[in-house]
Amino acid sequence: MSEDTAADGDAATSEKLVELAKRRGYFFQSSGAYGGVGGFYTFGPQGASLKGNLEDAWRDRFAVAEGNMEIDAPTIMHEPVFEASGHLDGFDDMLIECPECGTSSRADHLVEDNTEYEDAESLPIPEVEEVIAEYELSCPECGAGLAGVAVEDFNLMFATNIGPGDAQPGYLRPETAQGIFVEFPRLKEYARNQLPFGVTQIGRAYRNEISPRRSIIRTREFTQAELEYFIDPETDDPDLESVADVEVSLYPASEQNAADGDEIETTIGDAVEEGIISSPWVAYFLGVAKPWYEAVGVDMDRFRFRQHLSGERAHYASDCWDAESEIDGNWIEMAGFAYRGDYDLSKHEEYSDDRFTIFKQYDEPKTVERATVDPDMSYLGPEFGGDAQAVVSELEDLAARDRSAFEGDSVEIDLEGETHEIPVEKTGFAVEEQTEAGEHITPHVVEPSFGVDRLVYTVLHHAYREDEVDGEERTYLDLEPEVAPTFVGVFPLQSDDELEAQANDIVADLRAEGLSVTYDDSGNIGRRYRRQDEVGTPFCVTVDYETIEEREAQRASDSASGDEPRADETTVTVRERDTTNQKRLPVDDLAETLAAIREGDLEFESL
Amino acid sequence: MSEDTAADGDAATSEKLVELAKRRGYFFQSSGAYGGVGGFYTFGPQGASLKGNLEDAWRDRFAVAEGNMEIDAPTIMHEPVFEASGHLDGFDDMLIECPECGTSSRADHLVEDNTEYEDAESLPIPEVEEVIAEYELSCPECGAGLAGVAVEDFNLMFATNIGPGDAQPGYLRPETAQGIFVEFPRLKEYARNQLPFGVTQIGRAYRNEISPRRSIIRTREFTQAELEYFIDPETDDPDLESVADVEVSLYPASEQNAADGDEIETTIGDAVEEGIISSPWVAYFLGVAKPWYEAVGVDMDRFRFRQHLSGERAHYASDCWDAESEIDGNWIEMAGFAYRGDYDLSKHEEYSDDRFTIFKQYDEPKTVERATVDPDMSYLGPEFGGDAQAVVSELEDLAARDRSAFEGDSVEIDLEGETHEIPVEKTGFAVEEQTEAGEHITPHVVEPSFGVDRLVYTVLHHAYREDEVDGEERTYLDLEPEVAPTFVGVFPLQSDDELEAQANDIVADLRAEGLSVTYDDSGNIGRRYRRQDEVGTPFCVTVDYETIEEREAQRASDSASGDEPRADETTVTVRERDTTNQKRLPVDDLAETLAAIREGDLEFESL
Repeated sequence: MSEDTAADGDAATSEKLVELAKRRGYFFQSSGAYGGVGGFYTFGPQGASLKGNLEDAWRDRFAVAEGNMEIDAPTIMHEPVFEASGHLDGFDDMLIECPECGTSSRADHLVEDNTEYEDAESLPIPEVEEVIAEYELSCPECGAGLAGVAVEDFNLMFATNIGPGDAQPGYLRPETAQGIFVEFPRLKEYARNQLPFGVTQIGRAYRNEISPRRSIIRTREFTQAELEYFIDPETDDPDLESVADVEVSLYPASEQNAADGDEIETTIGDAVEEGIISSPWVAYFLGVAKPWYEAVGVDMDRFRFRQHLSGERAHYASDCWDAESEIDGNWIEMAGFAYRGDYDLSKHEEYSDDRFTIFKQYDEPKTVERATVDPDMSYLGPEFGGDAQAVVSELEDLAARDRSAFEGDSVEIDLEGETHEIPVEKTGFAVEEQTEAGEHITPHVVEPSFGVDRLVYTVLHHAYREDEVDGEERTYLDLEPEVAPTFVGVFPLQSDDELEAQANDIVADLRAEGLSVTYDDSGNIGRRYRRQDEVGTPFCVTVDYETIEEREAQRASDSASGDEPRADETTVTVRERDTTNQKRLPVDDLAETLAAIREGDLEFESL
Repeated sequence: MSEDTAADGDAATSEKLVELAKRRGYFFQSSGAYGGVGGFYTFGPQGASLKGNLEDAWRDRFAVAEGNMEIDAPTIMHEPVFEASGHLDGFDDMLIECPECGTSSRADHLVEDNTEYEDAESLPIPEVEEVIAEYELSCPECGAGLAGVAVEDFNLMFATNIGPGDAQPGYLRPETAQGIFVEFPRLKEYARNQLPFGVTQIGRAYRNEISPRRSIIRTREFTQAELEYFIDPETDDPDLESVADVEVSLYPASEQNAADGDEIETTIGDAVEEGIISSPWVAYFLGVAKPWYEAVGVDMDRFRFRQHLSGERAHYASDCWDAESEIDGNWIEMAGFAYRGDYDLSKHEEYSDDRFTIFKQYDEPKTVERATVDPDMSYLGPEFGGDAQAVVSELEDLAARDRSAFEGDSVEIDLEGETHEIPVEKTGFAVEEQTEAGEHITPHVVEPSFGVDRLVYTVLHHAYREDEVDGEERTYLDLEPEVAPTFVGVFPLQSDDELEAQANDIVADLRAEGLSVTYDDSGNIGRRYRRQDEVGTPFCVTVDYETIEEREAQRASDSASGDEPRADETTVTVRERDTTNQKRLPVDDLAETLAAIREGDLEFESL
């Protein structure tokens, strides 16, 4: 199923989620005071925190734990980079503009939404135009017929100009990856010229979508977390054993193409063995990604890896799988895992002035035969004048390519379409034995590429819950403590100096333990609980008059006994989000208790 | 001294630092393989880590500890936002283009670098043109005379187009602040409509500099960390007491203007009392910033707060101070602290369709007299036709502005330059008593705005050290452990399976303790030490054959005694960066020991 297929299922959760996200500070369309503009969203306080926690969790797993380097490159790059990467020529969507109302639409989406075609993006433009005519498709805005309207390629890069006067064209990067690839000649030095090594980047990327849609799922500015892993394809193997037992739900191309195809439940190890995943490197990163997605709160019953169909895959990618999550009956892409071969580095090698290779030392030096030329310039000079140097180049190329050409008395070369004969004796042709310590190889690239915004959306959607508490409907977010914006809400029961002072002391204690805390003293306590439920805060602590009475009793007893003050025995109410169960817990070790729960070393139920 | 004044002092450290930054992965000009483009830099693995650590330290202090909200807004915003903010019209630099070679230069910089004018940016363009002619200034590239060449305003925003077809103009934000201001109507809800509250953002900002220079000090794409703190100017006061004793070096405008002016050493409390800092809010944030800068490694002997001169300050800012650091004899701006009044919010209120005010409840409801009109449309309609509604508006405005105008029999209004008389009895004029619960006020803004790249540069520059070790020159970075990219380097002494296995165990132990660790087994041990010195890693741990022998001895003794294995008594060499002193420390509690040193609870010297 394509990620943009219209929802078959219940879209209601998405609608309610988007409303909650706006109300509670997760995300909302930017610049609403000026009418907003499609495809730009602002993460509010909760959303920025959730997004930051997810980025940190990604960094821990894919950079730190894997021993990869992280870099931070500019978002604007100049034109030559995108000439090399292919984005300038090929990074297009199909645009159709309504002749009546001027509305721009993606032609392939129009076709997919209104015909039985499922992958219109892979069709050539004339065919898409034919389908539009055949089905008499119309403008989604005004209903005007679009048959006969030209479909055009629209480049998705945001363009700008760098500098004044003799400005250079520049573009906002459509992926963070190019900021890594283009610096390979330097990065390999930081890796001490040893393969394999990986480089990560978390940062903004930009695509000038024709019709951004579905909240933060398809925006024009978004955040990617990408890893480019550089390997020697002949000698480097992944640590497959470490992930062999990871259970995965796979949706291979063969099953997608089959009439009654379905996901296959298997393990990474078996999937490689049975050839379902052809690249062990891709399999390794799928095996790393699956438990990571689970840990940050993606529902594993609504998660799968889907293989790209052959028409969907870039020509250079030998295998590609997406991590997909189910949202209201649709599957959306959250990450792509591609074996990109040497495509990226050899393109930059071809277009730039630098070397995008690594010198690979042989175990032992090798002796090789090499054909060389050493032309007699006193002959070529007078004969070819200004073209003499070009002739030398041709001879060098020819010697490297086909030494048999030098077997006769003369050799033929082409120069600007004309054939010239040159006596072999004037070329200085020779075959020499050379000892070589190694060779320059172009590393292959394995690319796990994660979309952070879509992950934020999935995590929120999969955490969205509705239930009934004391006869009232309740909404809450069942977020994992590791990524929840706030771990504890602390409330004084009422507006009261004593309660507030005690609550503030507790906030300070919890923060000192490294917990993320929010303090709230506005509105009645029920409203405050509901607010934290909707934010997804796992625990709330309420300071009430019992706390104050206990404190006073303890002070009186401490001062009567005259001893050193004893352990604080005052208690507070602690409420768990999911069950709404409440327990009175001692203030004294509250911070430690909650920290232990956060670490998974303790269960609230067992207290 | 202007930040761009040519260096009087020794620029050698900067040159050496930039070289080290490139060699060791701190930062380098981007896309070098394609010749690079001025003003864009990539942070390598060490730089990205240092920058991230500084951002985290800023977040801890200015968001978390202050209880402020953090948001994450897009970097592209559409045109209306910048019409309101004033950037579209006023965010210009003075451009002069050489008629001979086409080189673009900043006219004010040309003047400052080659004449006695110190603040040419504040001069009007005709005057700058006169100075250029008078001093016969020439193109810095080709030497052609620039007298008579027009100086033009050049807008510094990067422009782009959003969407296809009917594209909207958009710009890359020149400061993160607008992403906060423009969302005020929503952010105030998250703050439950209570002042004061603060909103922070850490993110990219963009300025299409005419001539970027001095490495990462003046780039075209950079990172800001900004706090917009919204206050009720009538009732909100900062917690000045908490920072009153902070000692600061201040360079007020009066001293800058004096012939023999100098920095004043004082405290925040005294500076407010003596009126040196006029805004207590600005003073508060200076008091928060100073110890923070010290903690992250800015040399306090090369740090000061400089007040803006009156010509330098934006017209709406009543007081503004910069945090400046000294780099090779020049002072550069690292942060600005401005009292911006209600400028930003009232501009957005004026230009947008939303309310940028907060409803401020009175302690008790107030009764106020209010003049209203309720015009007789059966009179105005026939009389004014299509203009009747405009007449109503005029009458409403007039009643609110000047109720005495309604004291006679008729009232005069202006409509498109023509004066009309309207009988007062037809206006429905009345003065009514109304009870008001509060009023809508426009909050004032206090803005601490930090440049992250310049901070990275300063921290590296102030940490740069050269000394001599064992008769050889050594370079090292004396970075604070809190911000250093790596806290410990772990090395096996030589290429040896046993040494490597033990070293890898130690890496895992240290990482589990939350320390940032790098493993290095390439090159001789001296080279590895020097590499970590240049990166600024505070400690190195070397596993040698003594470690292995101790381990074997212990195993033999453990197995002979037959008891439970005892505490691990094997030791490793730990070397401190600054002193190069080495000690043998037990492996058993190595992680705890190093963590305690990092927290400042233990001294390496005392071990």
